[in-house]
Amino acid sequence: MPSAISLITLLTDFGDRDYFVASMKGVILNINPQARIVDLSHQVAPHEVEEAAYLLKASYRYFPEGTIHVAVVDPGVGSTRRPLLVSTSRCYFLAPDNGLLTHVFQEEHSVEVRTIDNAQYRLDAEGATFDGRDLFAPAAAWLTRGQVPGSYGRLIRDYVTLPIHEPSWSEKTLLGRIAYVDRFGNLISNVTPLHLKEVQGRTHRSSVTIQIAGVEIDGLVNAYADGSADAPRALLNSNGQIEIFVKEGSAAALLKCRRGDRIEVS
Amino acid sequence: MPSAISLITLLTDFGDRDYFVASMKGVILNINPQARIVDLSHQVAPHEVEEAAYLLKASYRYFPEGTIHVAVVDPGVGSTRRPLLVSTSRCYFLAPDNGLLTHVFQEEHSVEVRTIDNAQYRLDAEGATFDGRDLFAPAAAWLTRGQVPGSYGRLIRDYVTLPIHEPSWSEKTLLGRIAYVDRFGNLISNVTPLHLKEVQGRTHRSSVTIQIAGVEIDGLVNAYADGSADAPRALLNSNGQIEIFVKEGSAAALLKCRRGDRIEVS
Amino acid sequence: MPSAISLITLLTDFGDRDYFVASMKGVILNINPQARIVDLSHQVAPHEVEEAAYLLKASYRYFPEGTIHVAVVDPGVGSTRRPLLVSTSRCYFLAPDNGLLTHVFQEEHSVEVRTIDNAQYRLDAEGATFDGRDLFAPAAAWLTRGQVPGSYGRLIRDYVTLPIHEPSWSEKTLLGRIAYVDRFGNLISNVTPLHLKEVQGRTHRSSVTIQIAGVEIDGLVNAYADGSADAPRALLNSNGQIEIFVKEGSAAALLKCRRGDRIEVS
Repeated sequence: MPSAISLITLLTDFGDRDYFVASMKGVILNINPQARIVDLSHQVAPHEVEEAAYLLKASYRYFPEGTIHVAVVDPGVGSTRRPLLVSTSRCYFLAPDNGLLTHVFQEEHSVEVRTIDNAQYRLDAEGATFDGRDLFAPAAAWLTRGQVPGSYGRLIRDYVTLPIHEPSWSEKTLLGRIAYVDRFGNLISNVTPLHLKEVQGRTHRSSVTIQIAGVEIDGLVNAYADGSADAPRALLNSNGQIEIFVKEGSAAALLKCRRGDRIEVS
Repeated sequence: MPSAISLITLLTDFGDRDYFVASMKGVILNINPQARIVDLSHQVAPHEVEEAAYLLKASYRYFPEGTIHVAVVDPGVGSTRRPLLVSTSRCYFLAPDNGLLTHVFQEEHSVEVRTIDNAQYRLDAEGATFDGRDLFAPAAAWLTRGQVPGSYGRLIRDYVTLPIHEPSWSEKTLLGRIAYVDRFGNLISNVTPLHLKEVQGRTHRSSVTIQIAGVEIDGLVNAYADGSADAPRALLNSNGQIEIFVKEGSAAALLKCRRGDRIEVS
Repeated sequence: MPSAISLITLLTDFGDRDYFVASMKGVILNINPQARIVDLSHQVAPHEVEEAAYLLKASYRYFPEGTIHVAVVDPGVGSTRRPLLVSTSRCYFLAPDNGLLTHVFQEEHSVEVRTIDNAQYRLDAEGATFDGRDLFAPAAAWLTRGQVPGSYGRLIRDYVTLPIHEPSWSEKTLLGRIAYVDRFGNLISNVTPLHLKEVQGRTHRSSVTIQIAGVEIDGLVNAYADGSADAPRALLNSNGQIEIFVKEGSAAALLKCRRGDRIEVS
């Protein structure tokens, strides 16, 4: 178990306009004025658990040991869905049990998953619509005050996971998927350099051809600057994934693509 | 008077694109590098004092004792409207005298209201368009450095307040109002459980019917998950207010409602 | 050289939705958990280096001595464009060598400009698309840990600057330019009170007339409150620049103006 530092990240679909995020921060600082809070993102599309899971996967490992990640995209708030506290060998996660932590479960070792049952970590509130403020924020803050995970609730094993979309094969063609579309309209796929090597092995060719939305892209370039403003290109991005882009433009707009769309490599 | 901690919240209509908010933070940290700054919201619709007042009301009480809340939605900047420093038994508020602190005046006790007259808390600047940076930020920062409220200016009693919209009665029907529309399109009303009890007392019925935008909603559900994607439902939200919602959708869009619209309970 | 404090500002075109900004913050806090991070803005229009340069110019001087400003609007990432570390007598800047620091070079004295060559300040990553996270963030964080600028790379003098748009003259008429359009639709020009004095000197008149988008504006008012909701007015803003505004409305929308448009004073 990591030594406790007091860094808490927040990932929600609450946006930045309403009182939601600020209330969570107030609750945390009221319990531990020394806590440090970093916004991971609050612009997850409303109720889009899969998008939040991707954002968490793409960023949590850059934070220091002991960081507490609070992720609240929670259409089931107030229902019987369970709130979770997850401890890994490096850090903590608090989130509803709806698949948001799918990639954490897949990638982390020595994971302990608990339901947050202990009512002492819950804020009194009349309604049951805002567990971000009334449950997850105080539960995270008490963790920075030295409360141990074991005090939160019982270990469980039947937590929810989302389907994990790994590329599949159709003969010598790799069938991938757009996993995320970023602000620039870059299309981030679930295809990695290892997949490309396997394509090359199966096709006995040194280059690859990518097909997306009816367009063919030959090989990879090294940098956005090597792209074209008129036609999509592909490169290996800094998360180790193949990404389709348009130079100083939006591949998503040009190709009318979005998360979940097919990408083929042959 | 609370012991001074160095936590400052910022609530503005400055958005997150321009140099406004960052300049305020720079000024604060230049005066007190130990100050901690939390964004309450910067996405108040431009010039919408009532919206800002609601956001402040919904969040300030979650922050620790001694917190300094700086709220700048300020169409009258540079005119004769007065800048205020308000001290309560728990915390401080700095804001223009335009009604932004209406709910603070209504809800807090032992409130001292001062105009900020002391020029030593003002930054030199050529123009008079940015009191957020040139007056409110430094005035708040100096408070964290131990300056006492009495040094800021004289006590006043004729501060501005907005009309407070309490539900009214038309025979046995309660006439309420949409007080806020959040990012999800949820319609937050000014109707509370106490109002519902009074409706039940007057109608001698155990259930209530809500009318909004020509639609009838019977009774309350407990959670968003108990709602419907096609029809609005009502619940008690975590601020203790009756809220109209559509499950994983937008009640505001479905009902074409906005802040200020009528809601009836009978 | 300023004594090192651990304040880092971030200015990017990364938006607030994706994992980009959070990853940068994670990297910084992983190297120095005591570092304090302030968002300058992440809403620069994608790839708009000139806009970022303006935002930096308008805000950096309000931050304390020793502040480290990291600015990443970087369409050339992964190409041969160089990453820079700039030291002034007051603070530091890290940015790609694409003109983003133009106003810093113009306004600051004792500027030392280095390329960041030392690979020890770079994070290992597969692709080369995210120097914000993999180079600029760690390089800034190591500065707060006491690494000296000289250890980053060699001094250079041939850094890139953008054209600086100063007003010019056509006989007695000053030809200025809209330098920035803010969230409110205010049009901030590159015309200053000194320019106005020179116009008055040349025209032998005590007042000035401003022409923009076919509309004439006579003289300046003192505050937004002195404006009109139907017609644009001009005032001296708190950055010392002449600004065109519409009272509680958008001058940009009313006049269909944007950055780069002409403004004339006579």
